[in-house]
Amino acid sequence: MAADADASDPLAAFRDRFLIPDGVIYMNGNSLGPLTRDAKARMDKVIGEEWGTELIRAWNSAGWYELPWRLGDKIGCLIGAASGQTVVCDNTSVNLFKAAAAAFALRPERKKIVTEAGNFPTDLYMLDGLRRFLGDECEVEIRPRAEVLDAIDADTAVVVLTHVHYVSSAIFPMADITAGTQEAGALMLWDLSHSTGAVPVRLDDAVADFAVGCGYKHLNGGPGAPAFIYAANRHHAEMRQPLSGWFGHANPFEFSDDYQPADNVRRLLSGTTGVLGASALEASVDLMLEADANAMTVNSRKLSSLFQELVASRCDGFGLELASPADAEERGAHISYRHEHSYAIMQNLIDRGVIGDFRAPDYMRFGFSPLFMRYSELDTAVDYLRDILESRSYQSSKYQAANAVT
Amino acid sequence: MAADADASDPLAAFRDRFLIPDGVIYMNGNSLGPLTRDAKARMDKVIGEEWGTELIRAWNSAGWYELPWRLGDKIGCLIGAASGQTVVCDNTSVNLFKAAAAAFALRPERKKIVTEAGNFPTDLYMLDGLRRFLGDECEVEIRPRAEVLDAIDADTAVVVLTHVHYVSSAIFPMADITAGTQEAGALMLWDLSHSTGAVPVRLDDAVADFAVGCGYKHLNGGPGAPAFIYAANRHHAEMRQPLSGWFGHANPFEFSDDYQPADNVRRLLSGTTGVLGASALEASVDLMLEADANAMTVNSRKLSSLFQELVASRCDGFGLELASPADAEERGAHISYRHEHSYAIMQNLIDRGVIGDFRAPDYMRFGFSPLFMRYSELDTAVDYLRDILESRSYQSSKYQAANAVT
Repeated sequence: MAADADASDPLAAFRDRFLIPDGVIYMNGNSLGPLTRDAKARMDKVIGEEWGTELIRAWNSAGWYELPWRLGDKIGCLIGAASGQTVVCDNTSVNLFKAAAAAFALRPERKKIVTEAGNFPTDLYMLDGLRRFLGDECEVEIRPRAEVLDAIDADTAVVVLTHVHYVSSAIFPMADITAGTQEAGALMLWDLSHSTGAVPVRLDDAVADFAVGCGYKHLNGGPGAPAFIYAANRHHAEMRQPLSGWFGHANPFEFSDDYQPADNVRRLLSGTTGVLGASALEASVDLMLEADANAMTVNSRKLSSLFQELVASRCDGFGLELASPADAEERGAHISYRHEHSYAIMQNLIDRGVIGDFRAPDYMRFGFSPLFMRYSELDTAVDYLRDILESRSYQSSKYQAANAVT
Repeated sequence: MAADADASDPLAAFRDRFLIPDGVIYMNGNSLGPLTRDAKARMDKVIGEEWGTELIRAWNSAGWYELPWRLGDKIGCLIGAASGQTVVCDNTSVNLFKAAAAAFALRPERKKIVTEAGNFPTDLYMLDGLRRFLGDECEVEIRPRAEVLDAIDADTAVVVLTHVHYVSSAIFPMADITAGTQEAGALMLWDLSHSTGAVPVRLDDAVADFAVGCGYKHLNGGPGAPAFIYAANRHHAEMRQPLSGWFGHANPFEFSDDYQPADNVRRLLSGTTGVLGASALEASVDLMLEADANAMTVNSRKLSSLFQELVASRCDGFGLELASPADAEERGAHISYRHEHSYAIMQNLIDRGVIGDFRAPDYMRFGFSPLFMRYSELDTAVDYLRDILESRSYQSSKYQAANAVT
């Protein structure tokens, strides 16, 4: 079954564009996408030829200056955003702050930001920072998923939700929630960190207000790659964000003392572009734009469904509990399972070359990246998982130490 | 004279560690430091071996997670900061916002931020953003250099100054101004963007409160390299900054909903570290730490003095006006000249391989990086400058178009 699926995979040719080490089954593209040949070549060029040879001139000659909006528009193609609404800069945390602050300021008569309990922590932390600094005029209401919609009321300025949940992988219905939010007179800010490059996103069609997302997960942009920020055209003229640095100025190289925001989405930029990180991301996004988006969605869902079936059939009775929606269409490109020994089991799997990750307190996550994963790898991965569960090899002391990062 | 100086340069061996193209005399290390062999090798490793092979495991196995404070401590050695007070993250603009916000919040009874007219624009713009964000409780007073000290009063919360001016290169006396600021009960925030790696800085000795600085100028960290932020130990327990992302959390991988700041300087971190940019910076900082700091200072001053003398003797009568302090000890590692045709003259110089830069409205800047510049290069550069001025070759139409970046 897996071999047949590999043979008929319309995206099979992309596998060779990725540099996955021999012996590794990489199921963590949802946390750090792997290196592509394109990114490696691009980095050789940006370092050796551009920085090394063009030096300062490369800001013009190599197009560094335009990177934030050039690359933003490319990512826009992956998230259903027409050009001129997306820029690449900073990291997701900082961009979330900017977008939330900008949206909040557009609803001056309202004081509430609504978000979900168990949202990705940095989203909650950045909103907490915004609230602390705005003082009494702002409050953040954090509600369990089932109660989020009820919390949106006439005092709500902004709703901040992550489209695909970082643990459960559950997808919020973007268009419906955006419409409901806007009916209440509030603005909608989506975090697309686990969505972009993994599931269909149509920001413009959903009439979203703001969005942010991560460059280093399914976009394969490299460790700590810069993030992106989207603002719908209709907000550009009025929106203001507090991190008003020179790259967001209407004319940065006038060097005037007064801040005059760019008259477009670039006013969401702050400081100097991190060219190395953004260049690796651009190479990987260029690659992704070569692939058929529908085929990526189909592949990712088929991969996760196959994994789910194999786990159900081969690992039954060992205490694994699916912690994601059972229907592949209702989840993103990863699946989580709970197990009381998740940390040790994942360490044991990694030791055998199957790289997923652990999330506190007891989740194992497995990612299904449509461009580089093979169906046959899932066969092997689940065999290893079954063997580890059956033999209890995870009980070895070498798998017990707790130190998990990203 | 120049040849003698090169022969006796104690740092001459460092020149070969830099990859400067043949035919280029690079006098713009104050804007974008050149590529080092060390950074190139480090990037090959971080891309090919760490990202490419270790993948997500590299956060632990390759020490990515510790990069912000490991590298911060190394930069601390260059700015007179004992360990545990400096972290590397984000860009200078964002770090200035964080430091200014943190300092401002430590003086809740005061509402004024004092800074200099003509300070580097992004500093002014970020303070403007902070002021807008905080509303009536904050005002920013922008005064000409000669009036800055007079503006510091009992309502002043924070003084924000750039140690070495980005155009004139004039140095503020750090210890004196810090002491004066603190006598008035305010806190001192230094921008060290044009100082670090170029002039002696002793933050701890000056009892500075906060500082930020740039990684891509004299630190040679690469285009858009991450910046650093310093907070004196005595402020760590009380300081809070609004960009409170997960990397500043006491325990990021607990994934709790509540933000609990790290109990040290790491609470100034926000989002995920940009590993590619920070790695290139680390390699270049490591190189710089091999050099004798006093010898760097001596070299830089000798280089700029020699340039000044050569310009005075060979370019007299062509309308150049020195726009920097005449005494090398009172300026940083660059010099500026004004000329009514500065833009075209600089384009003409660049065309001949002498790379400095132009700053609006009519400044030419020339940098003097002590580790890679040779005295004999200045001889050549000033000959070219003389020739261009004398022949008026800068009047060619090819040097007239205006498009200057960074």
